[in-house]
Amino acid sequence: MNYVKAFAPATVANVACGFDIFGFAIQEPGDIVEIKRKDEPGIVIADITGDAGRLPRAAEKNAVTVVMLHLLKHLGISDFGCEVILHKNMPLGSGMGSSAASAVAGVVALNELLDNPLSRQDLLRFAMEGERIASGSAHADNVGPSLLGGFVVIRSYNPLDIFSIPVPEDLYCTLVHPDIEINTKDARYILRNEVSLKNAITQMGNVAGLVAGIMKSDYDLISRSMVDVIIEPVRSILIPEFNEVKKAAISAGALGCSISGAGPSMFALSRGVDTAWQVGSIMTETFRQAGIEANMHISGINQGGALILEKS
Amino acid sequence: MNYVKAFAPATVANVACGFDIFGFAIQEPGDIVEIKRKDEPGIVIADITGDAGRLPRAAEKNAVTVVMLHLLKHLGISDFGCEVILHKNMPLGSGMGSSAASAVAGVVALNELLDNPLSRQDLLRFAMEGERIASGSAHADNVGPSLLGGFVVIRSYNPLDIFSIPVPEDLYCTLVHPDIEINTKDARYILRNEVSLKNAITQMGNVAGLVAGIMKSDYDLISRSMVDVIIEPVRSILIPEFNEVKKAAISAGALGCSISGAGPSMFALSRGVDTAWQVGSIMTETFRQAGIEANMHISGINQGGALILEKS
Repeated sequence: MNYVKAFAPATVANVACGFDIFGFAIQEPGDIVEIKRKDEPGIVIADITGDAGRLPRAAEKNAVTVVMLHLLKHLGISDFGCEVILHKNMPLGSGMGSSAASAVAGVVALNELLDNPLSRQDLLRFAMEGERIASGSAHADNVGPSLLGGFVVIRSYNPLDIFSIPVPEDLYCTLVHPDIEINTKDARYILRNEVSLKNAITQMGNVAGLVAGIMKSDYDLISRSMVDVIIEPVRSILIPEFNEVKKAAISAGALGCSISGAGPSMFALSRGVDTAWQVGSIMTETFRQAGIEANMHISGINQGGALILEKS
Repeated sequence: MNYVKAFAPATVANVACGFDIFGFAIQEPGDIVEIKRKDEPGIVIADITGDAGRLPRAAEKNAVTVVMLHLLKHLGISDFGCEVILHKNMPLGSGMGSSAASAVAGVVALNELLDNPLSRQDLLRFAMEGERIASGSAHADNVGPSLLGGFVVIRSYNPLDIFSIPVPEDLYCTLVHPDIEINTKDARYILRNEVSLKNAITQMGNVAGLVAGIMKSDYDLISRSMVDVIIEPVRSILIPEFNEVKKAAISAGALGCSISGAGPSMFALSRGVDTAWQVGSIMTETFRQAGIEANMHISGINQGGALILEKS
């Protein structure tokens, strides 16, 4: 095999109450990585599209190639060479798991080119290294669902313990990206290091409720559990119109609405695709009325995660 | 109807990671309340057995009758009179939900005598008032499972939102009570009001894992999730031999072991009744080797909660 083209989907991390422990993938958009074997050893970035020239072109500085270098090192392969093309199909710093999608597409493509020496589950920690470079923290709530699909729970980081739970069929995500940018490092920096025991208990109740609601297909319980008393009150300050947009989403029938990852994207979950569209319309309209351009993606929960699109 | 005799089971609250939000009932022991209608209005405690004279005999001071007075007031009944006999079948301040069992048996008996004007779910907040009197905090993680049965999740206290999740058939509880006493108010007092965000995230991961593990009958996941980084490290200091007893339980095959409620009782969960017995033997033996008398109860998860034993 000399050529592989892989796709890894955008993801919604945290999912209201589950900071650093919940995430799910959507169908689209997603990043695409093409890798082509070359004779000389070493990984070279041949091209990046869609980033307006903002991502580093040096292989040892770009998340997508750093994860590949980690993987090669782990496998003890020193004589491998390839050219990499990265197609960014989502904005940087958007809260849609942009860096995770690139890193996941990268490791999945390389693993395929090498004839799959590692399982998807095993690839996780390499993809997480990409997150460390992009955001300063090797969190798994974007790379996990982008790689594995489904609604993912990260029970533990050390040791890494991650699993998926079955998702109700009629659950749809509305992802709205307002045209402003937040740096994930900043979004982590403003969080307090301590939370009140009272808030921790409230959050734990909602975490338990969201897992049970999803597993029981109990949409009311999902709705009641999409409450974040720890992160959202702090981070939402960085998103203009957050409260208005959230209120609009709920009024249009969303089960819940919160920040996607570190923001500024916002997501809503709805029962049924029609409601998800209506929710998206009113959310984008609310941003636009405040002079902020916004676009939306409507999608079921992506059950499969990253995909190989082509190989030869 | 002039006479009702009701039973309410002991309960394990918190269940390792779920402080104030998880609880389950066991089959035995449990408290029994008998109430007999009398002509003159007013509630009188005729007798209490098994408490060695320690519980208050005045109706307005004892949790079991206070919850009845609350219920009567709510129903607008002022001319009702009854005699109450409370049989305490578990030690006070044991961490087995002793006060909750009494309060639950009380409201269930009275509701039955009045021909069930309220549902079980509706009785919950009256039983919680008993907890406020007994421990200074109207928590629901003992009264909830004692009243409703099953593995109970309290998603929210305000508004009260409580539900059960299905439990694996082969899950057994070992409850070991060492002959020492802890006051629940003290056990709450020593807790810190703040927790680190890091520990809150770890705990949330375990909460999510325990709910998913129980709902999927995934015993390994249950085992990995029975970790409490917030409460157990503080409260276990009040229990002599805690670490040794826990280690012994795990070595005998328990899925996990922690403090039952506020302690000093300790519980373990095991797959299969035989393992649960072996775990109990080694736990009590470990206490005894340190000079602490201990007794144990082995039980499946009680799915039904409180019971009417007799009426006439």
